[in-house]
Amino acid sequence: MSVQPQSVLIDGVPAASLPATDRGLQYGDGLFETIAVLAGRARLWPWHLRRLGEGCARLGLAAPEASQLAAEVAALTAGEARAVVKLIVTRGDARARGYGVSGSERTRRVLLRYPWAQPGAGARVRLARLRLGENPALAGLKHLNRLEQVLARREHTGSEYDESLLFSSSGALISGTMTNVFLVRAGRLVTPRLDRCGVAGVMRAALMAMAHADGTDIEQGLLTEADLESCEEMFLTNALTGIRPVTELAGRALPAGPLTQRLQRSLSEVLDGRRELQHG
Amino acid sequence: MSVQPQSVLIDGVPAASLPATDRGLQYGDGLFETIAVLAGRARLWPWHLRRLGEGCARLGLAAPEASQLAAEVAALTAGEARAVVKLIVTRGDARARGYGVSGSERTRRVLLRYPWAQPGAGARVRLARLRLGENPALAGLKHLNRLEQVLARREHTGSEYDESLLFSSSGALISGTMTNVFLVRAGRLVTPRLDRCGVAGVMRAALMAMAHADGTDIEQGLLTEADLESCEEMFLTNALTGIRPVTELAGRALPAGPLTQRLQRSLSEVLDGRRELQHG
Repeated sequence: MSVQPQSVLIDGVPAASLPATDRGLQYGDGLFETIAVLAGRARLWPWHLRRLGEGCARLGLAAPEASQLAAEVAALTAGEARAVVKLIVTRGDARARGYGVSGSERTRRVLLRYPWAQPGAGARVRLARLRLGENPALAGLKHLNRLEQVLARREHTGSEYDESLLFSSSGALISGTMTNVFLVRAGRLVTPRLDRCGVAGVMRAALMAMAHADGTDIEQGLLTEADLESCEEMFLTNALTGIRPVTELAGRALPAGPLTQRLQRSLSEVLDGRRELQHG
Repeated sequence: MSVQPQSVLIDGVPAASLPATDRGLQYGDGLFETIAVLAGRARLWPWHLRRLGEGCARLGLAAPEASQLAAEVAALTAGEARAVVKLIVTRGDARARGYGVSGSERTRRVLLRYPWAQPGAGARVRLARLRLGENPALAGLKHLNRLEQVLARREHTGSEYDESLLFSSSGALISGTMTNVFLVRAGRLVTPRLDRCGVAGVMRAALMAMAHADGTDIEQGLLTEADLESCEEMFLTNALTGIRPVTELAGRALPAGPLTQRLQRSLSEVLDGRRELQHG
């Protein structure tokens, strides 16, 4: 299925292309956000902004202005009932050959609008063979160096699986290729720590804040393959799908269990805008 | 210092920009080569081609045709006595949102010509604080996911250092940010193994082939910080600089020793085209 962007804004201007000297292309020197825009509202917008700001700070690049970004997302999605916006932020044009940063780079904003894709129901999940390298300097960031995810995604073709679970080189469960993962183990919710690799998703953060506000803490822990064999429930999250129950895990059928369903109901209030969450 | 490309060819056509949907930008899904072109001759061309071909095979993308690449390098550098060509190869335009590969992607070639920069003499080298993540699936490839190098390069500003040495997360010396590293330890030449991370440079490969042909084998070994403290000589290589002696290593003065100088003399015959090397 070919899904091309329907509209692109680069630094606020309709455009289809960007300079070949952009450091995003040259080095993957940048970050991205994938945003659900529903009825004119960029869902979890404060969470996206906060993660982007933290990422820019860690990479040492100037963060785009929030009001400018919001205006550009609005302009790009005007009149659309539902859309996906991919926002790419790069360190802009390389001022010279080589990795060095001159300090005079100007952050570039690339916004691409894609049609909304209704997420499927239960996810069928496999275990990826590829292991993620561990680097605390990049852990948590939604940066543009995503070859590991590309290679893991290439391990399966066709539609027999919806997602691949990734382990780190030291054997810790980290995430799916495009999702964060939560499981119920001995009645308790656990999600992998992301201090050595992985992307700290905005839906993950919002869900954890919601659960905390409701008195249900979610542990960030070290999980291994053995935890998958013994878990009672599992679900995936990302900014577009919210909570997606795992109904098949490496060949084993799993129920969309009671804890997963309760969190889905509570989260829908947040995602529909019926409930405000503190994101501080 | 701002050094902009003097000329750019994209898929053989003079152009300055490429689509925002290119997977090189979106995911760093591609490879690059940095090529010295001297008097119309692309130095170590067979080595560049071989590494590029191996990288394409490992990433599962269609390699550009060698004769087409050679013609484009020649066209881009026609009339230039000395130039640097950066060749970027990406998986081309994303056919959909997400990491998945449809199989119908068309590899894109981006060639940028930069002015020749005369390499300096002795290199002053520091140790980077950033550790490289280890991933055998990507080890050795000159791929576009280079945020680790960007961050390591950002650890120092100004011109007091020429290069930073990088260690892996498990403490193995790997390389510089833009060079491979060789050292003389107890009279023997050693260079780090690159089976868990690092870029397998073409100059490194050519040098090892030359040394082997001359009866001087270079060990690929596990090196740690202790080896730096005890080494007698050290030098850096990359495709542009050839052999560059390290004259200052983390504050310690080092001589451009006899083994380094002998290899420099021998290698100059290869780089000048006075001697042909088997690259098989």
